[in-house]
Amino acid sequence: MLNYKAPLRDIRFVLHELVEASKTWESMKSDWDVGEDMVDAILEEGAKFAENEVAPLNQSGDKEGCQFNSGEVTTPKGFKEAYKKYIEGGWPSMPAPEEVGGQGLPKLINIVMSEILGSANWSWYMYPGLSHGAIHTLMKHGTPEQQEVYLTKLVSGEWTGTMCLTEAHCGSDLGILKTKASPNADGSYNITGTKIFISAGEHDLADNIVHIVIARIDGAPAGTKGISLFIVPKFLPNADGSIGEKNGVACGSIEHKMGIKASATCVMNFDNAKGFLVGTENKGMSSMFTFMNSARIGTAIQGVCHAEGSFQGALAYAKDRIAMRSLSGVKAPEREADPIIVHPDIRRMLLTQKAFAEGGRALCYYLGLQNDIASTSTNEQERQEADDLLAFLTPIAKAFLTEVGLESANHGMQVFGGHGYISEWGMEQHVRDARISTIYEGTTGIQSLDLLGRKVLMSQGEMLRKFTKRVHVFCKGHIDTENMQEFVEPLSKLNREWIDVTTKIGMSALQNRDEVGAASVDYLMYSGYITMGFLWAKAAEVAYAKLEAGTDEEDFYKAKIQTAQFYFKRILPRTQSHKLCLEGGADVLMSMDVDHFSF
Amino acid sequence: MLNYKAPLRDIRFVLHELVEASKTWESMKSDWDVGEDMVDAILEEGAKFAENEVAPLNQSGDKEGCQFNSGEVTTPKGFKEAYKKYIEGGWPSMPAPEEVGGQGLPKLINIVMSEILGSANWSWYMYPGLSHGAIHTLMKHGTPEQQEVYLTKLVSGEWTGTMCLTEAHCGSDLGILKTKASPNADGSYNITGTKIFISAGEHDLADNIVHIVIARIDGAPAGTKGISLFIVPKFLPNADGSIGEKNGVACGSIEHKMGIKASATCVMNFDNAKGFLVGTENKGMSSMFTFMNSARIGTAIQGVCHAEGSFQGALAYAKDRIAMRSLSGVKAPEREADPIIVHPDIRRMLLTQKAFAEGGRALCYYLGLQNDIASTSTNEQERQEADDLLAFLTPIAKAFLTEVGLESANHGMQVFGGHGYISEWGMEQHVRDARISTIYEGTTGIQSLDLLGRKVLMSQGEMLRKFTKRVHVFCKGHIDTENMQEFVEPLSKLNREWIDVTTKIGMSALQNRDEVGAASVDYLMYSGYITMGFLWAKAAEVAYAKLEAGTDEEDFYKAKIQTAQFYFKRILPRTQSHKLCLEGGADVLMSMDVDHFSF
Repeated sequence: MLNYKAPLRDIRFVLHELVEASKTWESMKSDWDVGEDMVDAILEEGAKFAENEVAPLNQSGDKEGCQFNSGEVTTPKGFKEAYKKYIEGGWPSMPAPEEVGGQGLPKLINIVMSEILGSANWSWYMYPGLSHGAIHTLMKHGTPEQQEVYLTKLVSGEWTGTMCLTEAHCGSDLGILKTKASPNADGSYNITGTKIFISAGEHDLADNIVHIVIARIDGAPAGTKGISLFIVPKFLPNADGSIGEKNGVACGSIEHKMGIKASATCVMNFDNAKGFLVGTENKGMSSMFTFMNSARIGTAIQGVCHAEGSFQGALAYAKDRIAMRSLSGVKAPEREADPIIVHPDIRRMLLTQKAFAEGGRALCYYLGLQNDIASTSTNEQERQEADDLLAFLTPIAKAFLTEVGLESANHGMQVFGGHGYISEWGMEQHVRDARISTIYEGTTGIQSLDLLGRKVLMSQGEMLRKFTKRVHVFCKGHIDTENMQEFVEPLSKLNREWIDVTTKIGMSALQNRDEVGAASVDYLMYSGYITMGFLWAKAAEVAYAKLEAGTDEEDFYKAKIQTAQFYFKRILPRTQSHKLCLEGGADVLMSMDVDHFSF
Repeated sequence: MLNYKAPLRDIRFVLHELVEASKTWESMKSDWDVGEDMVDAILEEGAKFAENEVAPLNQSGDKEGCQFNSGEVTTPKGFKEAYKKYIEGGWPSMPAPEEVGGQGLPKLINIVMSEILGSANWSWYMYPGLSHGAIHTLMKHGTPEQQEVYLTKLVSGEWTGTMCLTEAHCGSDLGILKTKASPNADGSYNITGTKIFISAGEHDLADNIVHIVIARIDGAPAGTKGISLFIVPKFLPNADGSIGEKNGVACGSIEHKMGIKASATCVMNFDNAKGFLVGTENKGMSSMFTFMNSARIGTAIQGVCHAEGSFQGALAYAKDRIAMRSLSGVKAPEREADPIIVHPDIRRMLLTQKAFAEGGRALCYYLGLQNDIASTSTNEQERQEADDLLAFLTPIAKAFLTEVGLESANHGMQVFGGHGYISEWGMEQHVRDARISTIYEGTTGIQSLDLLGRKVLMSQGEMLRKFTKRVHVFCKGHIDTENMQEFVEPLSKLNREWIDVTTKIGMSALQNRDEVGAASVDYLMYSGYITMGFLWAKAAEVAYAKLEAGTDEEDFYKAKIQTAQFYFKRILPRTQSHKLCLEGGADVLMSMDVDHFSF
């Protein structure tokens, strides 16, 4: 049985010391009450809620799963009560602006809370988590009336939201969707079609569910240029905002899945359901892109959640479980064997988890702060820079962190040996729950094409250079710092190599477009390791500074430097295989005839 | 729903063309009726049985799982009937010698059958598969009476066997086991203790179950030097061989696991159960080592099973599912989008699966043939060489193939996108079932220590050199073969590097024993990629020879060469990260204080 504790010390390290969030927030809005103490107080309360109310439902929720019966979904025992307390605590409204009933707090605080709640119980967190897509869409593109009727209820958490995109035959390629919208005389639309994989599409936590549905209006162009967005509420609200008649949308079934079993994944049937256009006709795809980055950071954090949760379990076990003696001599003579944490390979797995959890946290918060700058700063240049950085780093964060999160969950299981395979320990659930994260919200393959094709090559390398310039400035700033050489020397070398590798791919892509797809995933992982290396080097810089200034937390800062050293020596060299593999090129992928893959 | 087809063409390629098994068998025993046609006929029958009787129970068995009720285990619907047909077909007795009722066929044929049956349904195959440990133990160490009473029934499959090693507090470190054996006046022992994770410990497929139990005789030395082996039958046989009274052993519960749910993983309680010593007192551990290699090859093949099974599912899906257009231009203008097999990254995943399935098959059969040589050859030197090769390559095969088998299963899921996460497609089951394979029968960490510590360094590199010499001779033989340069050039470079890397580790281990554990897993994976590279280069050699000689299967041999090219360009470079990571050394693993892993 796992026992999650929010890693508040490390969260404070990243927020206050590494990315210096409060300073940035206050520099943008001097009257913003988001000082470090205020933030800490919020997170301490949030941690208590997550640890005491949400985490205890994680394994029981997995075991029980959701039940489906004649269109209704029952969530596991305790989910409803925890959600009620979550609303009562005012948690859902944190990031929304005050004019729609929100608390106007920085979005990054919400990202931190999503890490804490998601580590405690990812399946449970998906119910409130999914509302953010609908909230964002209505905030950006809803009419004042739509905001009044729907947004305030979503912000308070009384109602929840969904994003209904995928259909059975299309997920990555939404241009071929079949759901139709037929205009009615009153300006509304009749929506007909079937959506699948709709998380929180139906459940018993809230009074109403607001579906944001993509569909094609009769006569609209084919492909992504004919897609529009609609609000389709489960119950149509009355004029006074109260809940009215049932709409023509119903859950047809829920999926049996590998993991996130307590999160209802629904088939949603729309049968002439009444829908209300959001934004402009046929511009649905571009409206959706406005919230893509934050949704992707929201999934990137899942990598951190499973790395952290699995690390906590594995660390406790490795200290307790005994097997064999240390190769370098007996370490626990009073016991029949040494605790397995004495063994180098067990430490390799634990440190890998730790480096990915803490490094991933750093990347998510770093990105989250750019997100706040992009939406809050009054300085146009600053905003644009943050926006560019966000566009470049988001696919890296989403794909890289979910991949290494899954790897970390697997390491945690491996530390447990055979016991890791047994459900009661909770370690295999992390692996099963983590497994979806590299698929939904854009697969690793899709993120990689976005990074290499759309962001890097389409900008002629400009977006990449903006980031490598930051890395370069950082490294240059430490050209004479002796204890930083072990970080900045390999980092600046890789930083130059990154440009070279990119240029080479760009050149070969001019000859053959398939070179982009052939290189993409290796390129993304390569970029991810360097990006995380930059953040680990920054973490070491901060830790050295604290140690030099004098601190009563020497152990904490020393461990931070040790983890950075581990990352640089034992993780960062993975870049080299990704580089060599992508240099292997497209020919060996494309030459085989489709019919010759098997005989 | 997956639909497994035994890849008989590729199996024949490896057996007859790559390792030339029949030739080798017949060279050792000229009257052995194991020609290629004979082998093919057996495997065709076996494939039919696996495809028609065993594969259809795979997903239903996973869904239903095993039921436990008052000490009794009920296997999923259909398992019992399939097992009955399996016995009737004479399949269990293939590899055993004729004097105990076996068919005296080469063990490699049994390995091939275990691949076919295990790919069809790994959980089902575990019931007969587990008997081989007991059979081997009794064959080597049983008295003639024990062989008469137990072995013949195990060989016929009427009874099944188990190996009862693990206890709740020890798996990798059996020296600290607690199960006791107290001698009785009649020469038997009373066995008392609890064993866990006993696969097929209790079930409804056979009339009796023969447990091979390790325990410590009263007064025996502590550690591994005081461990003895016992036969503990579920029912004590009468003098005439018929089933007598129930013994004091009972299943206490079965585990709820991530996968292999149709395989009963039992807690076995021994309460003064009557046991019969096998072999010599206190020599149990060394008796067990005699069958360790074959048991490990038996698990290595699980990597091949999941790579192959998942590949078959993903390939069919990738040809059928459409999404987006090829980056290099429309490929299926008649459809709304192109089949996803046109996308380079989908091909990268499919080819990775294919390369690991076929390369893993080659490695398992290559090893299996060494196993046959070691047990059958009358030439002492040949036997010794085979034995050394077996000792060296077995930990590589077990750990490397299960790791890349798991990776392959994950690629197959990824090709399916969101659908891969849904149970009905069967792809996520491959991932869950594969996940145990890197843990049981010695974890990847344990295999890696065995390889680097016990095999390579303890032999002063001798065992490694014996293998690299084979690789060297192969490469040298193609020094002037133009079309082989793309293989032998990188392979011979790596072959030399392998020695250098090993020497370096050996040197640093002299200073610090922890360097062995710190390098071990990266070293094993590094070795695995090279070993598989050698076999892919050999496969290409054979394919080129066939093409040059003229063949009506050009497409098959060309695809073989293309897959080898893919492996060399896009997989083999992974060696370089493993090399760099292991060169990162032990210090960054060992320096962190146990209490500083988290704050």
